[in-house]
Formats: sequence, structure tokens, C-alpha cells
Amino acid sequence: MDKEKFFGADWARKRIRVKSGNVEVALAEVSQTPTRLKNGTLRENPPVRIYDTAGAWADKSFHGDPSRGIPDVRGAWIDARNDTEIAGVVAGSEKNPFGGRKIRRARSGSVPTQMWYAKRGIVTPEMEYVAARENLAMLNGLDSKMSADAPRDSLFLQHAGVSQNGSARAEITPEFVRARVAEGTAIIPANINHPELEPAIIGSDFLVKINTNIGNSSMASSISEEVEKMLWAVKWGSDAVMDLSTGSDISETREWIIRNSPVPVGTVPIYEALARAGGVAEDITWEIFRDVLIEQAEQGVDYFTIHAGVLRRFLPYAGRRMTGIVSRGGAIMAKWMLAHKKENFLYEHWEDICRIMASYDISMSIGDGLRPGSLADADDPAQLGELKVQGELCRAAWECNVQVMCEGPGHIPMQMIDSDMQKQRDWCSRAPFYTLGPLVTDIAAGYDHINAAIGASIIGWRGTAMLCYVTPKEHLGLPDRDDVREGVVAFKIAAHAADIAKGHPAAQYRDNAMSLARAEFRWKDQINLSLDPERAREFRSQNDAEFLKDNSGVHHCSMCGPKFCSMRAFMEVRELASAGAPEIDGACGGMEGQ
Amino acid sequence: MDKEKFFGADWARKRIRVKSGNVEVALAEVSQTPTRLKNGTLRENPPVRIYDTAGAWADKSFHGDPSRGIPDVRGAWIDARNDTEIAGVVAGSEKNPFGGRKIRRARSGSVPTQMWYAKRGIVTPEMEYVAARENLAMLNGLDSKMSADAPRDSLFLQHAGVSQNGSARAEITPEFVRARVAEGTAIIPANINHPELEPAIIGSDFLVKINTNIGNSSMASSISEEVEKMLWAVKWGSDAVMDLSTGSDISETREWIIRNSPVPVGTVPIYEALARAGGVAEDITWEIFRDVLIEQAEQGVDYFTIHAGVLRRFLPYAGRRMTGIVSRGGAIMAKWMLAHKKENFLYEHWEDICRIMASYDISMSIGDGLRPGSLADADDPAQLGELKVQGELCRAAWECNVQVMCEGPGHIPMQMIDSDMQKQRDWCSRAPFYTLGPLVTDIAAGYDHINAAIGASIIGWRGTAMLCYVTPKEHLGLPDRDDVREGVVAFKIAAHAADIAKGHPAAQYRDNAMSLARAEFRWKDQINLSLDPERAREFRSQNDAEFLKDNSGVHHCSMCGPKFCSMRAFMEVRELASAGAPEIDGACGGMEGQ
Repeated sequence: MDKEKFFGADWARKRIRVKSGNVEVALAEVSQTPTRLKNGTLRENPPVRIYDTAGAWADKSFHGDPSRGIPDVRGAWIDARNDTEIAGVVAGSEKNPFGGRKIRRARSGSVPTQMWYAKRGIVTPEMEYVAARENLAMLNGLDSKMSADAPRDSLFLQHAGVSQNGSARAEITPEFVRARVAEGTAIIPANINHPELEPAIIGSDFLVKINTNIGNSSMASSISEEVEKMLWAVKWGSDAVMDLSTGSDISETREWIIRNSPVPVGTVPIYEALARAGGVAEDITWEIFRDVLIEQAEQGVDYFTIHAGVLRRFLPYAGRRMTGIVSRGGAIMAKWMLAHKKENFLYEHWEDICRIMASYDISMSIGDGLRPGSLADADDPAQLGELKVQGELCRAAWECNVQVMCEGPGHIPMQMIDSDMQKQRDWCSRAPFYTLGPLVTDIAAGYDHINAAIGASIIGWRGTAMLCYVTPKEHLGLPDRDDVREGVVAFKIAAHAADIAKGHPAAQYRDNAMSLARAEFRWKDQINLSLDPERAREFRSQNDAEFLKDNSGVHHCSMCGPKFCSMRAFMEVRELASAGAPEIDGACGGMEGQ
Repeated sequence: MDKEKFFGADWARKRIRVKSGNVEVALAEVSQTPTRLKNGTLRENPPVRIYDTAGAWADKSFHGDPSRGIPDVRGAWIDARNDTEIAGVVAGSEKNPFGGRKIRRARSGSVPTQMWYAKRGIVTPEMEYVAARENLAMLNGLDSKMSADAPRDSLFLQHAGVSQNGSARAEITPEFVRARVAEGTAIIPANINHPELEPAIIGSDFLVKINTNIGNSSMASSISEEVEKMLWAVKWGSDAVMDLSTGSDISETREWIIRNSPVPVGTVPIYEALARAGGVAEDITWEIFRDVLIEQAEQGVDYFTIHAGVLRRFLPYAGRRMTGIVSRGGAIMAKWMLAHKKENFLYEHWEDICRIMASYDISMSIGDGLRPGSLADADDPAQLGELKVQGELCRAAWECNVQVMCEGPGHIPMQMIDSDMQKQRDWCSRAPFYTLGPLVTDIAAGYDHINAAIGASIIGWRGTAMLCYVTPKEHLGLPDRDDVREGVVAFKIAAHAADIAKGHPAAQYRDNAMSLARAEFRWKDQINLSLDPERAREFRSQNDAEFLKDNSGVHHCSMCGPKFCSMRAFMEVRELASAGAPEIDGACGGMEGQ
């Protein structure tokens, strides 16, 4: 592992920290080059501050050694609440260098969850942190920066703080966050044993988040490859990672990932339970499962996917499907129920599960084990039956002060997406929805990240809070690091497009900065403001190496060449139009009058 | 150039021809492997017939020499109408081996356009051809093939002929096509000098089409590279190509492309006019432009983009924009108008232009020279003002019996897409809409094909008839052959998702075949039914070379490995559930009863 490989000298963003109330939030800053004006003077362009998920890995001062993990962010906040105690100490091993780490758990009678505090009207530092982080308008100082001179500057700002559909949105305050967490419409997954976490909020009133699935299988990958994938995911902007390992060293792989992850880490505990039951689904017992939950809780997993909504009565519907059950967790539970002729033990033990999770503030992600695996199976009784049960389970978890989100499909044709979102909102009492894509066709093998980004952008716009990414290898093989990058960036596009469409405050600020840089041929700024600056730089350099010099004067690219560049031509149009007129803006009589 | 490179022995589809009425339509057939049933017997799976754009290039018997071009399809149809005459013969040259080709034009007093015939109630062979081609249900014999045995088979067919929202659609008959062409809601771009064309229809009642922009610039590319890009485009399913060359050998490049293109070819004639005016916009005259139109008409260009809606009164609005004018044609016309202090000469000469185009049945694509180049500029008075003028121009062209489509944006945030589509439909009298993307964010440089596919899928669903692709190089450089592939496949996904969402008859048939192959672990069929079989095969083979053998028994992939494959687990669930019961389907008491 080499930090330089991930966040080298070329990395276009600088991590900075901004004080907000009682916390200091980390974010990334993209500096911009100045614009050369007609009179030869330079106009400074403000740096653009963006939401950042890379954590300490992008700090210049960070040691970069994954065997030491990233710094503690939340430890003092957790301790100050005085509702947890030390349950023990991690024993290290050759594959686990994190020996000596103290394990926290709830004190007897305490419920150390964000929801518990929120319901009691208490704003935690985690809530302050996420409120500040979401405030892109405030972070970019939009209130104080209205500039009077350049006309396009005012346009730049005009669209930055309000949505294109014109509705200004309320500022995101810590109290606004608290209220959402209390009512269950947003969650802050934050295990008390993951103090390295930079808290993030998942809910339809906030920026749309994306999740990256990583994890080995019995056929491929190693611990270091999985840690690399995690780093790659947060570098490109993933807001959460799920470790879905099913191969060897499941526990050690997870420890490495959590100790190095600045974002929430999720798992599907039934996978490890299956491995402990020798791969035989029917040999899984509640006791095995419970032990897995507690061990993973002590490691610091921030959210668990639990497939408790897969009930016996839905299996006949699944049997009639085109593609049956495509969720691993769903298939395991179906086998278990058929073999034992009993109801799903996760459903039966729901309260026990919730109590364990509440003791560590692990968020619940109610699995959708019966999600459709093909368009033909979309919106069938198995899918919709489970969704109703997810609602029931959601409200029961809230009774235990457990934060909850609901997982969703899958393969859904575009025309069904809106009604699926509506059903989830209605049936699950507005708990955050967390969907896999959805994929809008079945025939895009090799390009399923694009297929899924289409569905994801639409469902994100309609209110889904977190989008689980899909890689180009979906349906074909285990993704490698490069596939992770492709999948993450595709989903960042979907999430960002959704943020703009739903009017998140200042979501469009970065787009405006990019477009102004485009109009002014500031190539370096265009590169650095891109979601993937390295890819943009690579493509831009292929036919033309000169362009990156500051104010190089390269006013075209190889797509059009100098003669056919419309933007260059438009600059001439502007000059022509403003000849004799002091400014191009205003009534712009320079053009109209002639 | 090497035909084998494009459609080699590996090519997963076979070109076949099916007789329908008076014409024989070409399509592609994907054969499937049989399914091994529990009792050891094999069940045959029907071949899947799909809409094909590759033309003779995918015919086994084709010579594959681009200097000889592809065979004549429409010559006899055109001659039989007896409304054209031979205007001359092409003189060949070193760079143009197509000397001796006869040039057709309208006989004096004749109007040889599909619209002219349609208005008079006449069904042309072109109309018959497109009607048959669009009929995926009929081409797959869905009426006669209902199978009684396997339960998933009926599910397969159940969703194949009707849309998921349950509304069965009318069969696409030649008369249905004629009526759409007559009223102007669909067009069949088909220059009488492009007899090699396999006709296709563009309109919201038909399959969503995609267009691929190719063409050199002064900085990159050669004739053979551009012909390769065209072949690459039609191989991956592009329904049309635009040659936007602005570099050297503009005319020769176009001749090579048209003689080898089975799909309609479009151009933007103002580019060649600008080149003839020495690159100086203000030196373009109506006479130069008219000569370019006629020369390109004689070569066989099927549609022209004409930026006649960029009027003087809109320029002040463009001046106030974030990104000004990003259309090359728009910028050229703006410069011309400012220099001459006159109205756009394309607008002034509209009827002259339409008369020339009617003489060759060239379709009009009314350019959107003022499309927004950034989210901040979306839906501004420049864009919307031009759109209204497009409607005016559209109705004027119909008076001349010219087929028309309207070009659209651009950079549009998701929440504005639907209303933009509505405005186009209302203001342009339901003429087909042909949009560039739209791109739903400005910050996706390097991934703009994904960004644009998101907007394209939504606007296609809402009624846009043709989607102009965008490549990963957009905003950064000239796309190469690989970029063309990425862009085309991304847009095939968008178009197909839109076809499903809007309920095109049998659009989902291929998805269902794919999903059934997935459920039955028929890997070879999954690969061959994919939009890009070569990519899917490559990814699937990376960790596992055994899988491609027929009935290899490989019932998992490297994503999950054998133990954690949910589909495999589900097969066991099925077995468990059906033990003692003759079938898994029906009441499925095997599961429910236990």
C-alpha cells in the first residue's frame, strides 16, 4: 500500500478544516487559477469547497501506514456522553496489527444511539458535524460573496444557492438534523467502536449518498486488495462502503477496512454466519448469528444488512419468478426456512437483534432479500410483500431507538421507479431508502454501472437517500480496483444530478464554477473541478500537452481544433458585440441595437 | 480496413432476412443453447431476433472492401416511382474511388419525398420496410409461440409483447407508418442518392434511435479512421451517423462514409461553407452555402442540420449567459449576423433551402444553435426563443413536403427535462425531437457519456425520438474508435430503457431472454444477448475460462464463488420446495403448505 499512489502530488484537492459551532469539519478545497481580463489584469477566482469523503488519507501530514489506521475523530465525543464502558481489548495477531484497541459497549441501562439523543432533544457533535458538512452554501461563503463586477459572476452565484426550480431551501442546521434523526427520516450510521469515522447523514433531505460494495470471494482477492478498494472508493467520493467478503480472513479483512475507513462501514452478518456453519444454510443457528453480530459490533461495523423481511409466505411467489431469488441473504434464508419448516429466525429474533445493535449504535439496513433480479419480476408480490414487512420491522426497530434504512431493488424499468419510491415512503414511514441501482434493463452486461446509474439518478431525485453502486463487472465477475473507480464515479454523477434536481442548497455551485472555467478556457480548473481529475487530465492531454500551463492561451481542444471552436468563436462574438459598449452585460445594446 | 476486425468469427449475431409484404427486412438473430432439464433431456430455446443496424458489413457473403461500398437496397424502389432523373455522374479521383456513380435528382415538378407520398396516401417500400423492422413481436413470432410447459417460459412471453404498465400497443403496420410520416410526427431520412440505406424511422411512436457523431478536426484523424468509426458505430447499434468533419478532405471523407453506411448520414453544411470561405464566418454567402447543399445532396446525405433558428434578437440573451454559445453552427451564424448587421441568412432563405432538400428527399434537422452549454443557462430566453422559431420553421418546411426533426439540448438538469420535452411537442407540432444527451451535470468530464445517458434515457422515455450520443471525450478532445464504442453502447442502454418505459411492443423480449438465460446459467447466451457481447465475454473470462463450454455446469461466477451464489442457492430452494410436487409453479403448495 502506498499513500502516494492514492493521493499523490497530483491530487487536485486540498483537505482543509473549518470550524462550525463545537466541531471542526473536514472538506476539500479546489483552488482556481485567475482569469486574464481584456485589459491584461488578472481576476482572482475563489477556491471551491466540496464535500469530501477521503478522510485522513488525503491529509498531507498523514503517515499513510494502513497497519496503524487513521486518527480518532469521535472518541472524545463518545466518552463525554458517559453512556459507554470498556468491554475488553482486542488481541492482535499476525494478520491483525490492531491489538490493544479498546472495545466500547453501552453501559447497562444506556442506549447510546443518535436516535435516542435526538428523541430527547439533544444535539450531538455528530449532528453538528453532518449539519456543517452538508452546508455547501455556507462552506463556500455564498452569503458574503456577491460580486458586483463581472456579469457572469453574478450568474454564477445566482444559481449557486437555490435550486434551478427556484425554490430556496432552508439552511441545514444542527437542530434540523436532530429533528430528522428523531423522526427516523435520516440516520447517522456511527458505531461507538468506529471512532475514526467522519460522520455523514443519510436521508432524503440531505445530499444523496453512495455506497461501494467491496469484499473478497472464495475465488479472488486478498486483504490488501480489499483495503485498496476501500481507499479507491473514498478517494472518488464514496460515502459508505460495505464489506461483503465471503472468502478467507473475513474478520481480519474487516478490521483493516474499519481502522482505515473515514466513512461508515456496513456488512451482511449472515455471510459470516454461513461461513461459520460450514457453508450449510440450514446449520445456521440464532446463537451463531448472535455471536457474529456481537463480534462485528465490537469491531465497529456501522450498519448491518439483515434480511428479516423474507418470510415463508412469500416463497411461493418467488418460485414463480423469472429469476427467483437473486439476493444471497434472501436465498440463504429461503433455504433455512424450507429446511426447518419454520419462519425466518431473523424475523422471530428481531427485538433481540435490535437490542444488540442499539448497544453499539449500529444502524439497521433492512435487507430486500426478494428484490427482483429481472425486469419481468419487478413489482411482483414477493418484492412488494417484503417491502410491507420492512415497514413493520422499521417501526419496531425505532421502538428500540435503532436508526433504520430500508434496502430496495434491483431490476426495475424506469416507468415503475417513481411508484416504487412512493410505496417505500408510505409503507416504511419515510425511513431512508437505500437502493441497488436500480438497473433499468437486463441486457447491459459489461456496462451495468451505466445501466444502474440511470435508475439511480431517477430514484435519487425522487427521494432515495443512498444509492448502492454497481460496477461494470456486475453479473460477470468480482470487481477489481479499476472497476470500483468506474462504479463510484458513475454513481457520483447520479447522486450529484439528483442533488441538483431535488434542489439541495448549493449543489449547483460546483457546476457553475466548472462552466465558468469552461467559458474562460481555464483548463486546469476544469480538470480539477471534475469528479475524476485524473481521467479528465489524461483525456485532455492525449492530443495536446500544452494546455495545462497557466493561462496558456490554448483556447480550443482537439475535438474542434482552433477554427471550429464555438466557445472561441463566441468570445469573438462578445468582442464584436461589445465594441463601443463598456460592458457586455446589462441591456447588451451592443448587439441588440445594431 | 479489415472486415474481420469488425465482424469476425466471434460476432455473436447472424444476419438474416425476413419477407414482409413487398420487402425483405434484414435483422440479426442470436441463437441460444438448449437448457438441460432435471430429467436429463434438453429443451431447445428459440433464437432471439433483434433490430440490426450493421448492414451488409455483418453479412457473411459481403466482400468487405470499403472502396467498393455496400450493396444497393433502394435503387429499384426509387426508380419505380419514376419521379427522379439522372443529373450527372460522379468523377472519381485518387481519394474518391466511387467515380461513375449516377446522381439522382427530382424531375421537374416532382417532389420525391416520403412525406409527399404519405400525404397522398401512398405506402412506399421504405414505409413497409420500417414497419416490418420495428415489429419485434412479429419478428420473434410471438403470436404463434405460446408454450404450455415450462412456467418461466410463459412468464417470458407474458412480458414480451406488452409493456410492463400493462397497455398492449397497436401493431406497427405500413399504414400506421404512413400516417405518422404524413402528419410529420415521424420521418424516414432517405436521400434518393443513398440507395445503400436500410431505411429507419424516427418518431416518438417508434423505437428510440441513437445518432453517432464522427468526423475529423484540423488536429486529428484520417479518412480511414472516420470510416472505421462509422463501422464501429453501426456494429454497436447506432441508428444514424453524422459526419462533422472540419479538417482536410471533407468531401472525400463523406463520400466514403455514405457509400459504406447502411444507416442515414447527416451533416452540418455550414461547416463546409465556412471552410470554403477560408474559415472566416462573415465571408460565407448564400451562394457558397447553396452550392454546398447541392453537392452534399448529390452525395447522398440523408439529413442536414441547419441553424436557422438563431435569430439576431436572441443574441443579447446569449451574451448574458454563463457559457454563451456552445454550438459551432450557432457561433458561426452569430458572428455572421453581427458582422453584417443582418438577420440570419439561413432563416431568410428557408424556403430556398427546403426546395433544394425536397428535390433529394433530405430530411431537415433544425439545429439548436442556442442550446445551453451549462446547467446555469438551461431554459433561458435564448434557448426557448429559438425553440419557438424552430416550430415556425418546422411548419414552413412541411409546406414544402420536407421531413423535419428538431434538435434539442444540451445541458439540462433532470427536473427540467420533462417540461422541455412538453414545450418542444407543443411548439413544434409534435415533430420528432432529437437531443444531444441532455447532460444532467457539468462536472462529469471524462464520463460525460454516462452523464448524458442519464438525461437521454429520461427524455427518450418522455418522447424524444433520437438521442445524439456523447462520448467520454466530450469537452476534452476528439473521440477515437474506442470512445465511439463507449458512447454508442451507453446510448443503446438509454434508448432501450426508454423503449421499455414507453411500452414499445416487445422491447422487453430480449431482456426476458437474457434473464431466463441468467436464471439457467446459460453463460454463452447471456454473453450473446448482451448489447456488447465482446466486452461481456472479456469480463466473464477474466477469472474463469471454463464457463463458455456448452452446459459446462459452471453455476457461479467469480463475484460470489460457488458457495455464495444466490441463484445457485435458489435452484436448491426450488428443488427442496418441489420435492413431492410435480411442478414448482401453479399454487406452489410445495412451499406454502409446509
